[in-house]
Amino acid sequence: MYSFRNDYSEGAHPRILELLNKYNLEANIGYGEDIHSDRARKYIKKLIGKDNVDIHFIPGGTQTNMLVISSFLRPHQCVIAADTGHINVHETGAIEATGHKVVAMHCKDGKLTPEIIQRALDRHTDEHMVQPKMVYISNSTELGTVYSKHELSAINDKCKENGLLLFLDGARLGSALTCKTNDLDIKDIANLVDVFYIGGTKNGALLGEALVIIREDLKEDFRYLTKQRGAMAAKGFILGIQFEALFLDDLYFELARHANEMAERLASIIDEAGYKFYAEPCTNQVFAIFPDVLLEKMGKEFIYEFTDKVDENNTAVRFVTSWATKIEAVEALREFLNKNR
Amino acid sequence: MYSFRNDYSEGAHPRILELLNKYNLEANIGYGEDIHSDRARKYIKKLIGKDNVDIHFIPGGTQTNMLVISSFLRPHQCVIAADTGHINVHETGAIEATGHKVVAMHCKDGKLTPEIIQRALDRHTDEHMVQPKMVYISNSTELGTVYSKHELSAINDKCKENGLLLFLDGARLGSALTCKTNDLDIKDIANLVDVFYIGGTKNGALLGEALVIIREDLKEDFRYLTKQRGAMAAKGFILGIQFEALFLDDLYFELARHANEMAERLASIIDEAGYKFYAEPCTNQVFAIFPDVLLEKMGKEFIYEFTDKVDENNTAVRFVTSWATKIEAVEALREFLNKNR
Amino acid sequence: MYSFRNDYSEGAHPRILELLNKYNLEANIGYGEDIHSDRARKYIKKLIGKDNVDIHFIPGGTQTNMLVISSFLRPHQCVIAADTGHINVHETGAIEATGHKVVAMHCKDGKLTPEIIQRALDRHTDEHMVQPKMVYISNSTELGTVYSKHELSAINDKCKENGLLLFLDGARLGSALTCKTNDLDIKDIANLVDVFYIGGTKNGALLGEALVIIREDLKEDFRYLTKQRGAMAAKGFILGIQFEALFLDDLYFELARHANEMAERLASIIDEAGYKFYAEPCTNQVFAIFPDVLLEKMGKEFIYEFTDKVDENNTAVRFVTSWATKIEAVEALREFLNKNR
Amino acid sequence: MYSFRNDYSEGAHPRILELLNKYNLEANIGYGEDIHSDRARKYIKKLIGKDNVDIHFIPGGTQTNMLVISSFLRPHQCVIAADTGHINVHETGAIEATGHKVVAMHCKDGKLTPEIIQRALDRHTDEHMVQPKMVYISNSTELGTVYSKHELSAINDKCKENGLLLFLDGARLGSALTCKTNDLDIKDIANLVDVFYIGGTKNGALLGEALVIIREDLKEDFRYLTKQRGAMAAKGFILGIQFEALFLDDLYFELARHANEMAERLASIIDEAGYKFYAEPCTNQVFAIFPDVLLEKMGKEFIYEFTDKVDENNTAVRFVTSWATKIEAVEALREFLNKNR
Repeated sequence: MYSFRNDYSEGAHPRILELLNKYNLEANIGYGEDIHSDRARKYIKKLIGKDNVDIHFIPGGTQTNMLVISSFLRPHQCVIAADTGHINVHETGAIEATGHKVVAMHCKDGKLTPEIIQRALDRHTDEHMVQPKMVYISNSTELGTVYSKHELSAINDKCKENGLLLFLDGARLGSALTCKTNDLDIKDIANLVDVFYIGGTKNGALLGEALVIIREDLKEDFRYLTKQRGAMAAKGFILGIQFEALFLDDLYFELARHANEMAERLASIIDEAGYKFYAEPCTNQVFAIFPDVLLEKMGKEFIYEFTDKVDENNTAVRFVTSWATKIEAVEALREFLNKNR
Repeated sequence: MYSFRNDYSEGAHPRILELLNKYNLEANIGYGEDIHSDRARKYIKKLIGKDNVDIHFIPGGTQTNMLVISSFLRPHQCVIAADTGHINVHETGAIEATGHKVVAMHCKDGKLTPEIIQRALDRHTDEHMVQPKMVYISNSTELGTVYSKHELSAINDKCKENGLLLFLDGARLGSALTCKTNDLDIKDIANLVDVFYIGGTKNGALLGEALVIIREDLKEDFRYLTKQRGAMAAKGFILGIQFEALFLDDLYFELARHANEMAERLASIIDEAGYKFYAEPCTNQVFAIFPDVLLEKMGKEFIYEFTDKVDENNTAVRFVTSWATKIEAVEALREFLNKNR
Repeated sequence: MYSFRNDYSEGAHPRILELLNKYNLEANIGYGEDIHSDRARKYIKKLIGKDNVDIHFIPGGTQTNMLVISSFLRPHQCVIAADTGHINVHETGAIEATGHKVVAMHCKDGKLTPEIIQRALDRHTDEHMVQPKMVYISNSTELGTVYSKHELSAINDKCKENGLLLFLDGARLGSALTCKTNDLDIKDIANLVDVFYIGGTKNGALLGEALVIIREDLKEDFRYLTKQRGAMAAKGFILGIQFEALFLDDLYFELARHANEMAERLASIIDEAGYKFYAEPCTNQVFAIFPDVLLEKMGKEFIYEFTDKVDENNTAVRFVTSWATKIEAVEALREFLNKNR
Repeated sequence: MYSFRNDYSEGAHPRILELLNKYNLEANIGYGEDIHSDRARKYIKKLIGKDNVDIHFIPGGTQTNMLVISSFLRPHQCVIAADTGHINVHETGAIEATGHKVVAMHCKDGKLTPEIIQRALDRHTDEHMVQPKMVYISNSTELGTVYSKHELSAINDKCKENGLLLFLDGARLGSALTCKTNDLDIKDIANLVDVFYIGGTKNGALLGEALVIIREDLKEDFRYLTKQRGAMAAKGFILGIQFEALFLDDLYFELARHANEMAERLASIIDEAGYKFYAEPCTNQVFAIFPDVLLEKMGKEFIYEFTDKVDENNTAVRFVTSWATKIEAVEALREFLNKNR
């Protein structure tokens, strides 16, 4: 059985575990005020080319999303998101539980555009409706697509013009920034959004997301808000050490590149076998459409997730690769598809 | 510099790290549905002598408290707690952020009693006031004290009579159940409360609390609620493996016993040196009162926390021991006190 | 200038004011426990043919919606509504502010159907998504349409099969139950939903909605919840007296019939003049489509609201009639349209 | 039976009802944007001597409190209040339901002081605790006492020094400002607090509180927040007309003076009869201590509320007078006490 279920099935990359072992018996200050967290912050600041940012290490992604959105909006304000956005669909209403409406807009390929954002603004005209104040995007998106520099700049412009905060969910930022079609680097991200995070959980860490707050006026009291939402780890250094390992050298992007290479190879195999894609493959999530009769067999040898029923006889499924994906698993699919023409 | 700052300054006990390393490359199902979490659940069920309980592994303590309280109360209901209770003081209003009032009652030694609970009930008489529905206690308490079997039974009786849920915060349950004055075992806990947790973070794990839901009618949909509060770890198996390590054999209590032994020794040293305690020492938190002039020197060699100014010249401070505390650190205090008579 | 802006532009129907004057100096118990509220409850219970219901008088509609939804759902549960539903669009996120997602479904004519409800259920399959637990409908809807007995029964069946609560917003229930195409009576409503309200504000009262809780298990502690949301009027008898006036005899329906007659006449005038409707007219809200050039003139003599831009040259607008609408106002529109052919 | 239960037992003062009748059939704009609300705003601005304030008419007191507090605090911030404060005790956790902790401080006579506020600040030292950001006081207080100009200035100074907002609940402001010991006028109030309200419900209106926002930076988007909390009345002009009536001339204070005169007379009667007070009488709430044997008889002729059991044989009870209290009711108590020496 080969698993392409997701990119958080294994523990941590060995170089991360190594560092956790190395510092295990050190007595560290709690709550993210330790030297490892500081070192990781220093590395990340250098990488993004900005020194005057605040960086907080948060245990999980849903937590980070709810923390960011609830901290920066006033009660009557809402966040605009793609209808496929993680916060709209897959967080059991975590955002609404903090009191805010998610205004979900229909999107192609999981990506918001200035036009779609404008449509959301046009619908919200007075005090009887929620007030749009933030735009939430993810890169890569839930459909594995990425924003180009041109696209992200245009969204940033639209936000600036309309006093909207721009928040980028980077749970899979590594894969986005190392994929073939990408033309953004992490410095661009830091220049074009107000707040974003660099996902660790889905790129080799045991857990953890590095939240980067760019805008000065969003920084105040953020540690209070983190604590209140249960997002301040007592042993914050556990997160710090992991991001230290990821950004000490190029490990973070190295892992992402591996995941992307495995996904590319997987996509060519599927393409060569004559199957279509549900979304253009590009990062470590490959959405392909297979006949149901084929899937019946495939399900006995491979683990993947159901995405959508596209017609009576065909179904879209998702294959995810990661730092831990082995080439044998990918090649096994080639063999399977060859055998089952 | 010897640190008695807290019991979450180091990483994980080596036997836990060992297991994390061992299973690191296994492909596991996410969100706590993996075999390690199941194994840990099995061990804990056996230990508490109950099979029909639900066990969820939650990353942090504040998270667990807010999750439990917000899940089991209706909007108009409140939780009764000691005024020193963690939820009242040290969680930045996490409970209130979920909509519920904490009715804080003045207590001696951090412990609620049936009389104090009754006083809270007497004050809440009609629909213009919040409705008491849950009692929150911690064992050991924030002052390091523990409940006796008799005391816990009496609270349980009072709750039953008044339709109150009883929730025990066991962030330091290991230390409570292995201290000298304790007469409760974990089976008693499971029989006398409706929901409780077994703290991992403060007893040797990287992070994690094992939440045990006893009452049948509290179990429904708890995974939805966990996800909504950002408390469902993607790599839930990381928590599962750690609790597997802790409860595979006696490790959990072994670690707690060590912490208690260190604390006992520390307390005798302080006692022998002629200093008084702020609260009767008994578990791994020792609250002692020292002259300010002495503390000025002590602070240069030992790390501890400020607790209270007791009079013009004397201050109560907290020393915490843990599984990682070394006897040399404790003995260093003896030497220091001898030198500074 | 003739106003068709809405049905809450005037004070109260004179027979209501009369009763408020009559009882003005009586000393009444506060918070809805007075004899007038009790009398109004008695009248309503008789009218709906059910004695074992709980009736609460709530000052406003948004308040009633948020109170009902937040009281009957657990934190992870959501309410299904038409995308045009008042709670989705026009309450500034009041529902989300209590922590619950509104799952908005695209609907024709503002009406949910069993099929649409099923579609919402199909999309919410596990604990990573909110759990549908309530269906919110309004009668008449925000587009002035009404549910037939057959349609409401089918929705009720769908809800029963799926453990969903059915909540009917009756802000304009009077108009719905007295319109020509209606085949429901208020006893049917009480039999086919779990909770509903009878709108006073939009049918002749100064303010007030009569909330009727049918299901036994929804009744508990509702006064606590009402108080908590700021929805328990100190002088509750002010609401009680008004509903006493409305249901002492047939006044409530008399007022609604008048509004409907005015709307019908308005609709024929528009129809005869050759204009189309944006939604089939039937209750006291008439949505008609006019050329923009005509509206430019019309706006100088009549007050109405913008609804939608239907194409480059035409716009849908809303005319609302009420108990206070005079026939002269309606006839003035005939004259205007005749003059402006 | 003579009722001293509270000051909201009757409808509205006849001059208010008169105006409601007079304007009843006018077609007004909804949601507080009508000419009557504007006129009332103009009168109030003149009275308080400030033109650049925002005034909103809110249906109820609990609503106003929760709206103000939840609008002006960020999620991690708390409000400091007297332990007897209405928001702490008698609003069923309405403040906490919006996510904020009420830090309740023990006070004498229901009044906060700079020292008590400082004590609350001293207890909240870092991000593990809620952050004090607002002080809530009421004038008159829940014990019928009032703040002097000196006291209010000192609180204002303390707030300014510590970046705290000062919010004054004026549900009974009329009675406070017209009582004998008072040395504040309403202009002082407007100069010494950031936001306050002028209570209508307890001083002659059917319902309604006039909320005055002084500080510029608190004004933004307040109508959104009002709508979201269900506090924006559709027929806002109903509130506007009432405040127009109250402030067209001196009616508001006239009614309050009457209530105070009745209370003064009541207090002298009790004093002359030799009974003690639970709190120094001064406004329209008189808290007196009577023997239980006497209360047994008194309860058959007079309605009042239980306050506190002061010792085994004596109980404190509350008598409230209002604009509607008749001198005969007061004199009846004299007679009763004479008869029952």
